[in-house]
Amino acid sequence: MTFNDPIDRRGTHSSKWDKMETLFGVSPDDGLAMWTADSDYPTAPCVIEAVQRAAAHGAFGYVWEYPEYLAAIQWWMKTRHRWEIDTDWILTTQGLGNAIALCLDVFSDPGDGAVIFTPVYHEFAMKIRKSGREVVECPLVRGQNTYVLDLEDAQNRLTGNEKLLIWSSPQNPSGRIWTREELRAIGAFAARNGLILVCDEIHHDLIMPGNSFLPMDLASPETRASTVFLTAASKTFNIAGLRTGNMIIPDPDLRAAIRARLRALDYSPNSLGMMMIEAAYSPAGAEWADAQNRHLDGNRHLFDETVNAIPGLWSMPLQATYLAWVDFSGTGLTDPEIETRLRENARIATSPGPGFGTGGERFQRFNLATQRYRVEEACTRLRAAFSDLH
Amino acid sequence: MTFNDPIDRRGTHSSKWDKMETLFGVSPDDGLAMWTADSDYPTAPCVIEAVQRAAAHGAFGYVWEYPEYLAAIQWWMKTRHRWEIDTDWILTTQGLGNAIALCLDVFSDPGDGAVIFTPVYHEFAMKIRKSGREVVECPLVRGQNTYVLDLEDAQNRLTGNEKLLIWSSPQNPSGRIWTREELRAIGAFAARNGLILVCDEIHHDLIMPGNSFLPMDLASPETRASTVFLTAASKTFNIAGLRTGNMIIPDPDLRAAIRARLRALDYSPNSLGMMMIEAAYSPAGAEWADAQNRHLDGNRHLFDETVNAIPGLWSMPLQATYLAWVDFSGTGLTDPEIETRLRENARIATSPGPGFGTGGERFQRFNLATQRYRVEEACTRLRAAFSDLH
Ligand SMILES: Cc1ncc(COP(=O)(O)O)c(C=O)c1O
Ligand SMILES: Cc1ncc(COP(=O)(O)O)c(C=O)c1O
Repeated sequence: MTFNDPIDRRGTHSSKWDKMETLFGVSPDDGLAMWTADSDYPTAPCVIEAVQRAAAHGAFGYVWEYPEYLAAIQWWMKTRHRWEIDTDWILTTQGLGNAIALCLDVFSDPGDGAVIFTPVYHEFAMKIRKSGREVVECPLVRGQNTYVLDLEDAQNRLTGNEKLLIWSSPQNPSGRIWTREELRAIGAFAARNGLILVCDEIHHDLIMPGNSFLPMDLASPETRASTVFLTAASKTFNIAGLRTGNMIIPDPDLRAAIRARLRALDYSPNSLGMMMIEAAYSPAGAEWADAQNRHLDGNRHLFDETVNAIPGLWSMPLQATYLAWVDFSGTGLTDPEIETRLRENARIATSPGPGFGTGGERFQRFNLATQRYRVEEACTRLRAAFSDLH
Repeated sequence: MTFNDPIDRRGTHSSKWDKMETLFGVSPDDGLAMWTADSDYPTAPCVIEAVQRAAAHGAFGYVWEYPEYLAAIQWWMKTRHRWEIDTDWILTTQGLGNAIALCLDVFSDPGDGAVIFTPVYHEFAMKIRKSGREVVECPLVRGQNTYVLDLEDAQNRLTGNEKLLIWSSPQNPSGRIWTREELRAIGAFAARNGLILVCDEIHHDLIMPGNSFLPMDLASPETRASTVFLTAASKTFNIAGLRTGNMIIPDPDLRAAIRARLRALDYSPNSLGMMMIEAAYSPAGAEWADAQNRHLDGNRHLFDETVNAIPGLWSMPLQATYLAWVDFSGTGLTDPEIETRLRENARIATSPGPGFGTGGERFQRFNLATQRYRVEEACTRLRAAFSDLH
């Protein structure tokens, strides 16, 4: 097992480590990078071997079609998620940020609205704004231990100008796995309002032991005709740098619309990205992913216990993802005060909650996909930085 | 040296080998793949080592900024092409086909015209059509040993509806290096007609010994304000599968327009592509590229001698590129007859001339970026397949 082996990512062009000083004023030399969502350990050995095989061959020419790549995706969805898809439904993009941007481009015009349920992955709103569309925020509501939907409130926030709903499942940043009822309700909400549902399931493999993920398409098959599903191996296998993600679009008209745009822009996936994903979506990859989930589960239990023991701090229990969502509101501190303590005292770079939209105030997101010793160190530093408050 | 070491690319997802049977009816088992433009030998050792280093590290997370990549491009343009560029001018795309498609998208509307000088790389016309624009063909004229421009004729073909001129330099398929006067004339032609010049210099490193390449920006600096330069390491280093190319845009307004589109679509280059290009654009890469040019020069001399000794065949002398452009018109055969002999008798997959537009009839393009023994075998087969004609 290598999840706990020390690794030094400084000087490897890793944004998570290289940009933390500029963005957060936290030096990579003594700081902990717990912000952007990639992992601090190597990918699965089977994926590394695929890269080594390509290097040994040495010719990196054109790869236009790659049926084994598509078959591997199909196999993974079926064996890991009980989701049966046709390989024809798969369209490869430069990652899911790009896929979301393409959906906005194809299914809406500048000035149209796109709906998001906040707090949510900050880049949803960024993509919407960068494409000249309007962000329509529908806040999630704090339930017992996590967020729940208030679709009546959401309905009141729509103007009729909205074209898409961008949905995160499992949810980033809360780690929520949506129930069948919730997924059906969201599907019906999208249908009722004539919204294309962009269903981003990028975190679907990062499931904490004891939980199980329900794909949207299984929960709400009737929504399929207006849904673009987004999946990727990038989070699960720490290969986000390869910029390869997939749209899975069962509906022929939606698919034709996206495909026409990809053709006009002359999209073509890169060979190493596909080779790595083919290797990842395999029995060996599945075993590695299970071991990773056990590692992450250990990390999050340790982290939550420590954080919840610090008065004024509370970590939302994760069902999925490796992203801990920590509420600092009990401290009475302002967002800048929270950040000052995190950056200057604890020397931890986290993703600030306010970036995740309404409801993100006084939260910080911690990436736990790292070595156990780094989580322990983060715990020690958080205790020291926030223990004087009560 | 590995340019002549045997390599088997079957079963490596290489389109050149995997698709030849479907597209040309030539089996990869006894056929020769001399069509699409990648090479049949491994890339430079320094590039392979970069891949091996990344595999040894094993974490393939986000790489958002990579100043050393941009610096390597700048270094290469300066030391190899005497072309001084700012790193700010560089925008990375998914290869140059994608770059051309983006130029069409940003600088024209559906129904507008884009000018090409034919015969030329068949994908120029394909990209124009796929984006819903009109192809405006201006035929090149057969000069002594190669093609020359007839800009008076070209002027008469324009309707005023054209927005871009897509230009290949050095020229694919003729292997022509344009002179200073020709480049200045093309620059003036574009300016006079209000056309954005998309200057595709992808083959600029593949220069036959004794020739030297003149970049458009050095020949015609006054055209810079309306030019998008396209360059890539993909042909030179046989890494087209990584789908990484560059637009170099000195003009701030043109650059801002493209950058806005890249941002809206959430483009981001893949990490291994950039790492490989950084490694390629180095003194070790330069030495390898020089050795490759000597290898290609040997190949093309052998090929041209053999072909020119077959009555009715003539191979246009290459100044650049590894693409031999062979005129079969002296045989009196029709295009289908030429192809039948090539596919069924010689069992060679080539790029058919008619695809390159007006002037490509009765031509076939042969990719010579392969082992010497494969070129020899092609020569033997061509002699056998076409020797009965006179
Ligand atoms: C929900 C969600 N979607 C998309 C992405 C980004 O995907 P990509 O790297 O493929 O653009 C992330 C990354 O954190 C994410 O959490
Ligand atoms: C002139 C020219 N431009 C562009 C390309 C394709 O570039 P890319 O593989 O980066 O899309 C080629 C490939 O043959 C070419 O010859």
